[in-house]
Amino acid sequence: MKIESIGEFGLIEELARLLPEGKDVIKGIGDDAAVLAGRRRDSYLLVATDSIAENVHFRRSSGAYWIGRKGLAVNLSDIAAMGGSPLWAVVDLGIPSGISVRYCRQLYRGMAELAEEFELSVVGGDTFRSPDGIVISVTVIGEVERKRCVFRDGARPGDVICVTGKLGEGRGKHLKFTPRIKEGRYLGESFSPSAMIDISDGLFADLGHICRASGVGAVIGESAIPLAARLRGKSEKVKLRALGDGEEFELLFSLPENEISNLLSSFSAETGTTVTPIGKIIDDQGRRELVGRDG
Amino acid sequence: MKIESIGEFGLIEELARLLPEGKDVIKGIGDDAAVLAGRRRDSYLLVATDSIAENVHFRRSSGAYWIGRKGLAVNLSDIAAMGGSPLWAVVDLGIPSGISVRYCRQLYRGMAELAEEFELSVVGGDTFRSPDGIVISVTVIGEVERKRCVFRDGARPGDVICVTGKLGEGRGKHLKFTPRIKEGRYLGESFSPSAMIDISDGLFADLGHICRASGVGAVIGESAIPLAARLRGKSEKVKLRALGDGEEFELLFSLPENEISNLLSSFSAETGTTVTPIGKIIDDQGRRELVGRDG
Repeated sequence: MKIESIGEFGLIEELARLLPEGKDVIKGIGDDAAVLAGRRRDSYLLVATDSIAENVHFRRSSGAYWIGRKGLAVNLSDIAAMGGSPLWAVVDLGIPSGISVRYCRQLYRGMAELAEEFELSVVGGDTFRSPDGIVISVTVIGEVERKRCVFRDGARPGDVICVTGKLGEGRGKHLKFTPRIKEGRYLGESFSPSAMIDISDGLFADLGHICRASGVGAVIGESAIPLAARLRGKSEKVKLRALGDGEEFELLFSLPENEISNLLSSFSAETGTTVTPIGKIIDDQGRRELVGRDG
Repeated sequence: MKIESIGEFGLIEELARLLPEGKDVIKGIGDDAAVLAGRRRDSYLLVATDSIAENVHFRRSSGAYWIGRKGLAVNLSDIAAMGGSPLWAVVDLGIPSGISVRYCRQLYRGMAELAEEFELSVVGGDTFRSPDGIVISVTVIGEVERKRCVFRDGARPGDVICVTGKLGEGRGKHLKFTPRIKEGRYLGESFSPSAMIDISDGLFADLGHICRASGVGAVIGESAIPLAARLRGKSEKVKLRALGDGEEFELLFSLPENEISNLLSSFSAETGTTVTPIGKIIDDQGRRELVGRDG
């Protein structure tokens, strides 16, 4: 059987069963980051890991600075989706022969500037010769107060589904997004989100992850989805395809209905980022409904 | 300037200067593992990361089980070299198209069995399509009591240099070694090693890392080096070349002279692994001397 036939998620599920999981593991494989016994009684450690590979996740011509930055940013996005703050990162860099020192410096500069912005320390790493194409593997360790840690599996019927920012920004944005750490922290501090994920696989796919983990369904209002300016006037088909692209790195979360008016009145002012209610969690486990403009 | 002209260590040093390093970092880039503020006042967290790539570190034909096992084992060896115990690991696996699910299962089985042996939990991971060749990036988080953490930079003139196991076992062993966690723990618990490293670059190169970090020199007795049986009767040249191969994953450490007789009388019985004094740390910073049979 080839990997292609069971898909990445099938493979990960299959493998998760093989791997031992024991002491001090609050949540292992299956959320944005692993959740582990923390440094204090009232906190957890978070660990997120992600790799990006040339010609799969980026082209070399996109610029070393942005590629390096993205290698770190995708992991910070996973820490954000748990409501956490990043502490430390380690970086493994696979370099094909013929890459210049200048290029590597730019890669690291992209990482270093993002690390400084979010006050995390890059504490280790490894470089290795990659036979073909640049590979960047980053692991970020973060921290979150126990009561503020947001998992994927807590969504409850009646909760309102919200999303930060605008969706469908397209390929250029995917390399240059700002991880929603500040937004995730503010949500955890001032509200009680019941489930959260970052949009890396696409709005509907990631909403599906929340629904499956929580044992609930969802109804989304198509016209409520906050779309990027570039999609204005485009056909429904183009818009929906753009939403399936993934790599938005916005936060998708569910919130008790009674907190929504407070959220709408404070979130943008506090974080500089918009937030939009786009639908509701429902009791019907299998159901995912997209309600049109006239629905 | 191409990477080849400054070498991997040159590149890492260069990059280390670019990367920010701040709060809660006891020791960042430049030892076997990063040392970070721990979960208790009297402990540190350790983070080691390492990648292995097909056709660079292994051939696909060497067997998925052993390749997966090695991906984890090289990182456990780094935790051992700090005197620590592993807690958790995350795994990023780059898979070229056409690899079978069966092959992946075997890779993970190799990791899973080693993880069980050392009671660590694999808590997360990511699979991605690798354009060419399998890439395995593993990060291990471990823990060590503050007073038992052994750095590279504490070797003092007069200390005896020791090594575990036998050296020059050759390529077959490199894939199947057992990380010296138990040995590193016993050393930290019962003795006061002043510096320690795992032999990944070769006996002399890794001794050089200890000497440079500690600002000391070293004299090694050639006839004292514990050689693998396969090297018996071979020429000096062949023996020395085998010692330069690296990837021994034995522990190389320095110990106050007054602890040596105790070490020799108890180490093998306690750990099942031999230990051999092979030389001495000297005051002369630049000097690394290999003393022959008649020296």
